[in-house]
Amino acid sequence: MASPRDDAPVESARHESPLGAARRRKTHLKVPEKSHRTAASKTAAARETMNEPTSIKVCCLGFGTVARGFLDVLRSKEEELERDFGLHVLISGVGTRHGSFVEPKGLRAGELQARVGDAGLPAPARSPHDLLAAAQADILVEATVMEHEAGAPQATAHIETAFSLGMDVITVNKGPVAWNFTRLNDLALAEGRRWRFEGTVADGMPVFSLLERALPGCKLLGFDAVFNSTTNFVLEEMAAGRSFADAVREAQAQGFAEADPSHDIDGWDAAAKAAALANVAMNAQITPADISRVSAREITREQILGARERGARLRIVSSCRLRDQADAARLPVLSRTRSDGRMPLWGRVASNDPTRASEGAGGLGNATRPASVDGSPVPIDVRQGVVELPLDHPLAHIATTSLGV
Amino acid sequence: MASPRDDAPVESARHESPLGAARRRKTHLKVPEKSHRTAASKTAAARETMNEPTSIKVCCLGFGTVARGFLDVLRSKEEELERDFGLHVLISGVGTRHGSFVEPKGLRAGELQARVGDAGLPAPARSPHDLLAAAQADILVEATVMEHEAGAPQATAHIETAFSLGMDVITVNKGPVAWNFTRLNDLALAEGRRWRFEGTVADGMPVFSLLERALPGCKLLGFDAVFNSTTNFVLEEMAAGRSFADAVREAQAQGFAEADPSHDIDGWDAAAKAAALANVAMNAQITPADISRVSAREITREQILGARERGARLRIVSSCRLRDQADAARLPVLSRTRSDGRMPLWGRVASNDPTRASEGAGGLGNATRPASVDGSPVPIDVRQGVVELPLDHPLAHIATTSLGV
Repeated sequence: MASPRDDAPVESARHESPLGAARRRKTHLKVPEKSHRTAASKTAAARETMNEPTSIKVCCLGFGTVARGFLDVLRSKEEELERDFGLHVLISGVGTRHGSFVEPKGLRAGELQARVGDAGLPAPARSPHDLLAAAQADILVEATVMEHEAGAPQATAHIETAFSLGMDVITVNKGPVAWNFTRLNDLALAEGRRWRFEGTVADGMPVFSLLERALPGCKLLGFDAVFNSTTNFVLEEMAAGRSFADAVREAQAQGFAEADPSHDIDGWDAAAKAAALANVAMNAQITPADISRVSAREITREQILGARERGARLRIVSSCRLRDQADAARLPVLSRTRSDGRMPLWGRVASNDPTRASEGAGGLGNATRPASVDGSPVPIDVRQGVVELPLDHPLAHIATTSLGV
Repeated sequence: MASPRDDAPVESARHESPLGAARRRKTHLKVPEKSHRTAASKTAAARETMNEPTSIKVCCLGFGTVARGFLDVLRSKEEELERDFGLHVLISGVGTRHGSFVEPKGLRAGELQARVGDAGLPAPARSPHDLLAAAQADILVEATVMEHEAGAPQATAHIETAFSLGMDVITVNKGPVAWNFTRLNDLALAEGRRWRFEGTVADGMPVFSLLERALPGCKLLGFDAVFNSTTNFVLEEMAAGRSFADAVREAQAQGFAEADPSHDIDGWDAAAKAAALANVAMNAQITPADISRVSAREITREQILGARERGARLRIVSSCRLRDQADAARLPVLSRTRSDGRMPLWGRVASNDPTRASEGAGGLGNATRPASVDGSPVPIDVRQGVVELPLDHPLAHIATTSLGV
């Protein structure tokens, strides 16, 4: 049992991590980060940097589970965003195909929730261009559902519209990243706009940020992922005795499978996530259509139960390899232990020698750069497959388990 | 199977991830990151930004496995560091208690390796102050082994000396972070120096960077970690039939347990890592002496085999909780699947509602801020314990398994 120091002054014992303070300083002062601020030095820093907060206005396209959850998050973190980052995030517009709400001055998340209520957005609906122009927002949060049509034309157009109006974009719809990453990214660069998409792959797990910001000296050699939670749920329900159809109905009843679940069941959702990750992190320049798909409809209960008898689970796994690194030793560095969104990313982040790895390899990762440097293409393989995973495989988890040491 | 586009121009098919390009731009231009550069826009950017690379000189204290591995990494990434970050990293000094090498102009890693060879550093040894002053380096890489003495006085003094000489510091020795984080961090701030320590906890897994850079809006609520690889190895060997003493000897023979393995076996190494992580990420202000320890000597083969019969593994787990968050639902966001260094970090990074989580929660995590905002202390509990882990628990992995989809 720990004994936190009782003699620490109240102020310095206040819980804010030094990491948080370093972030705040970065945000406010725009000076190079030098080290972690401790509580002792924070108050002065806060006084020094706490000027009027910056207001940022957001317009949401789509007002389903994700956008509503986003408002909940904003509301719960309002105080923190102001204190730690000097930000007021306001909502100046929300639109769906059925209705819209615009308030160019912007509302706090809670105010918007109170105004809109549970009834949904009032009529009339506006075109995305009209809504974005009227909302006078700084950022588009693109939160429409993934389109069934190839190319994700609507969501892509929303983003292009936002860029043309001088807005930055946060995409939580994976379609544009999966189908049109290069085109949209080039447009963002040409327009000088910022484009983020951390919510598109692996739910809240920071995949893109991990690679970009926490592993800046490393290259992704490949990944193995169980991307789709509806499929997992169905396979687990079938293992427990339900039929495929009943399992799908139960997933719909619990609210995470859509009315037409074929996007999930037939592998399109997983293919889109794999393409998005491969495009952003490996410059694959592929689309979901380039990836062979596996449908959960093809998996029988007998197969599932057979695996279970062998102490294993069946999973639909999306695997990506740099073609010349197919046999590379791999060290997963990130996985998430839930019934959804499992994804070890791998690369040689430290020495492959176990004696080395146990010692650590300093602050620099040891991932080799697999790319040719003469400009020739380095192709990748991405595919889906049904895999029987032993229980101790990182992709075989079914739930978060807590410990009580 | 994927079909990477054959019609892509050679230049744009060249494998460098857009993330890499974004990093380079950040490093060179010091402009706010706006979006990911694609291959198509990179060449111009490279021409625009590729001025003379910056030379950075490093002095290493300690020349064991870690420091030698660091040189190997530097050598293998020399070209990348120059191309992607505009950096020449040179070594201008290396010192141990037995010898030293100084070349104030700095040598490339390979040159230094050729000059020093396998024989070790030539006599005479120099005092750390003299070596650091003579090497005229920009950065100290502190790579001495963890001291058995409480307080890590030597490594701490090395860092203080480096700060006083105007150097930044990379610590791979966990002692200073575990024992003296607040003091050294305050000193770094006062001197305007940068201090990094990513190599101190969980080997090459980017724990601190993940929290600071990839999850800037989130707070760590706690962690469960299997920190020590020697102990794991010993427990696995005992499960396979060896005695405790034989297992320790084997770990020593394989080179990852030290001549005096008590630091690992008796829980001091794990306590130091737990204290380091709690200090940096949660402002715990504790030391390893504040953490109850468990010794692997207390675990019998009968206990290990009993767990194995129940399909489980025994592990020594370090757990940390914010005291008021003991029952918080947890979402592990990072684990590493090796025989060493396993550590899920958890917080509420997305909604706890499974229907929400399956939809993702946009780019913003939903971690609640557990701290009181009135300045009162928020204590933590950190402890070690022997835990019987089911095979599908994230901490129960024994090896990296590859897939062949």
